[in-house]
Amino acid sequence: MYKYIYDWQIAIRRTENREINVKNKVQPRRPGGFNELLPAGQIEFDRLKGIIASTYEKYGFTPLDTPVLELTDVLLAKGGGETEQQVYSFKREGSKTDFTMRYDLTVPLARYVAEHESDLVFPFRRYHIGKVYRAERQQKGRFNEFYQCDIDVIGSRSPLIDAEFPAIINEIFEKFGFGEFTIRLNNRMVLNGFFDGIGLAHVSSEVLRTIDKMEKISKEELKENLSQIGLNRTQVDKVLDFTSITGSNDEVLSRLGVLDVDSDLFRDGVEKLGILVGALRTMGVPESRFRIDLRIARGLDYYTGTVYETILNDYPEVGSVCSGGRYDDLAGYYTATDLPGVGISIGLSRLFSKLSEIPGLIPAERKSPADVVVMSIGSDQNETAIAIASALRESGVSAMLYTEPDQLKKKLRFASRMGFAYAVLIGEKEMQSGTVSLKDMNAGTSREVEVMELVSTLKK
Amino acid sequence: MYKYIYDWQIAIRRTENREINVKNKVQPRRPGGFNELLPAGQIEFDRLKGIIASTYEKYGFTPLDTPVLELTDVLLAKGGGETEQQVYSFKREGSKTDFTMRYDLTVPLARYVAEHESDLVFPFRRYHIGKVYRAERQQKGRFNEFYQCDIDVIGSRSPLIDAEFPAIINEIFEKFGFGEFTIRLNNRMVLNGFFDGIGLAHVSSEVLRTIDKMEKISKEELKENLSQIGLNRTQVDKVLDFTSITGSNDEVLSRLGVLDVDSDLFRDGVEKLGILVGALRTMGVPESRFRIDLRIARGLDYYTGTVYETILNDYPEVGSVCSGGRYDDLAGYYTATDLPGVGISIGLSRLFSKLSEIPGLIPAERKSPADVVVMSIGSDQNETAIAIASALRESGVSAMLYTEPDQLKKKLRFASRMGFAYAVLIGEKEMQSGTVSLKDMNAGTSREVEVMELVSTLKK
Repeated sequence: MYKYIYDWQIAIRRTENREINVKNKVQPRRPGGFNELLPAGQIEFDRLKGIIASTYEKYGFTPLDTPVLELTDVLLAKGGGETEQQVYSFKREGSKTDFTMRYDLTVPLARYVAEHESDLVFPFRRYHIGKVYRAERQQKGRFNEFYQCDIDVIGSRSPLIDAEFPAIINEIFEKFGFGEFTIRLNNRMVLNGFFDGIGLAHVSSEVLRTIDKMEKISKEELKENLSQIGLNRTQVDKVLDFTSITGSNDEVLSRLGVLDVDSDLFRDGVEKLGILVGALRTMGVPESRFRIDLRIARGLDYYTGTVYETILNDYPEVGSVCSGGRYDDLAGYYTATDLPGVGISIGLSRLFSKLSEIPGLIPAERKSPADVVVMSIGSDQNETAIAIASALRESGVSAMLYTEPDQLKKKLRFASRMGFAYAVLIGEKEMQSGTVSLKDMNAGTSREVEVMELVSTLKK
Repeated sequence: MYKYIYDWQIAIRRTENREINVKNKVQPRRPGGFNELLPAGQIEFDRLKGIIASTYEKYGFTPLDTPVLELTDVLLAKGGGETEQQVYSFKREGSKTDFTMRYDLTVPLARYVAEHESDLVFPFRRYHIGKVYRAERQQKGRFNEFYQCDIDVIGSRSPLIDAEFPAIINEIFEKFGFGEFTIRLNNRMVLNGFFDGIGLAHVSSEVLRTIDKMEKISKEELKENLSQIGLNRTQVDKVLDFTSITGSNDEVLSRLGVLDVDSDLFRDGVEKLGILVGALRTMGVPESRFRIDLRIARGLDYYTGTVYETILNDYPEVGSVCSGGRYDDLAGYYTATDLPGVGISIGLSRLFSKLSEIPGLIPAERKSPADVVVMSIGSDQNETAIAIASALRESGVSAMLYTEPDQLKKKLRFASRMGFAYAVLIGEKEMQSGTVSLKDMNAGTSREVEVMELVSTLKK
């Protein structure tokens, strides 16, 4: 015990200081809206983040990482709007540099592509998983700092590219295991072409905005809203007829195919939707998971082609868990080069927070940070414990070594609180017989295992 | 070709607009000191980051993630010093909240542990890989935003814990493959105990600071510095004798063991160094990779026990690539609970930047973002290309689908520029015979492969 004497002295000395200073402690706390997770939640969050990253990589997307701080005049080049009121902008004292924290990953992508244009190979596929910052008013489920997990392809107009995103969403949400889901598909060319065709080109934004709300308002309200925009009765009926086109993907496509709309844009959009559906079938995405929905518009002026949103069938109240679409002009504020893009984003922080509220969906119990914990019963077995932990790691089993000179009871309580399924115990008896005691923490049972067979036993 | 007409029209219209607006573009650029990588560099950077994370996890460290923005009064509770001048602090207009961007991952860890104390199980092992922010004057190799990759164990005084860090460093730098490296070890108890024993307790900080510079100054300068601090000739000689104790780990330990120093602290420190060396041997860390070096002090008041630093043998000019140590009191500003800790940090951004300057060390050529690229030769083979790419991914081969309706020559140039080793080509001939053409991009040769055998061929 000699070696702990000095430490105890330190502890006593410090406690004395502490009694004097205890009132001067700063309360450890975070700014409101800035979330963090406890270990079990973080392990689960990172598991989901890992599924997203590895799936993005499987399709050949390159990881990208840009600074959290951008120059204000660059980031807010577009200017105006709600965005500008919701950003964290600042100058340091004595410095002229005007910084703004990124509020999404799309504008930094535009800046990156424009800045490094000559060094990139197009089509440029990148994924970016990172935190973004919005100074929104605080409310439940809204964070001021949150993760976005984006993929975009820049520099391609091929409709085949558009099909990769639902295929990727399908794979990610299948791995997530939050039940069945539906990827809703539409194409803004179909919508805008249709509005053109019935003489509504001049108010297409307003009509879109109204259709976007369709699910939330009654049919009467919808009619009234459309009238207020200036649609005559025939136009209102045509819009209602159009948005009521539902059914299987083939049914919707064939009804759109025979619709009498005088617009090349419309026909081109319908053809693109058809290519998208065909490619998704070829990719093996189950037909039940993607559905053309003509009411999906996804915001206003941004998108110009395919649009996506994703609903969890069992939890529609969560809203869209993965959305995106095609936009014609990514970096028009920075470069004269024509850079069309298409992409999707998963708001993982929001998704995780919402799903955590649903009982049983995200396991609340602690997940162990390693496959197994290795413990000596007495200090004489420390060396053996170290050697066994090292051997396990070398064989691909992650192992935590318990290093404290505690009583066995306390050691086992630690293993249990940390969520380990198995603890490897080494005592005097085990050392003599060249075995370890493998304790099943859930069943509470133990059995002797030969050291040489430990790895194969654990891998089972 | 019909389906591209609309896109072309858009392109022409946009070009016209562009000619008018070209002067109004915002130059895409970043704030100085805020670095970002091109795709090939990012792939390599992320590979190294992945090695660090997976090794940390192998030893049972839990991932942790804290907000980038902290409350200024909490983050700067310690106050004073250089730190305060190098932080990004700000308030938003109309808000009282005073934010500071984190400048390291240790103070946020202290805040986290104190805030969530009752929800954590101790000893608490966490790793955190994240960006930190320092408003340093810009110079080569210094960034204002950079990655730190930290691990710490909080709540343990066991000297066995101290041995895990060199074992982890050993594993990470072995996987990195930057040649041989040396982990230098020391213990502040040995240093402080020795100073106590020769009557230098009152100036131990100053003596430490001088010793820390030993490698950079001459012996004469060193003597002069020590005299200026107030050491008499005998004390100067004793300090010089002490710091000249070198040799194998066992030699240094045995020389320390017989040194006549009247200090329990010293003897305790020497014992702990001995335990550390013994545990590292048990863990199988090669003896050539760790070395007791009594000149290592690592900064000033922070550390209280074991200290570490790591030198790349072939690139000593890079300085320490992984440092850390044991500190007695992590969260004293926030809580009265005694929270000793020990940890190390890898400054990955700095390491990556320094090593990138050394020719041949970090491969400069582009790394492909997937195992293979799949291309149809004509549009009739698109569907087959999609199906083959999907089948490859399902078999665990990451595959990029080339989706552009380009000439074969352009497709192959893309594959080459993206660094793909192999391209899978599907043309009319291949479709008829149920084969693909597998092109070795480096050799420039092609061969026919049965579709069913493609996966096994690629995995070879």
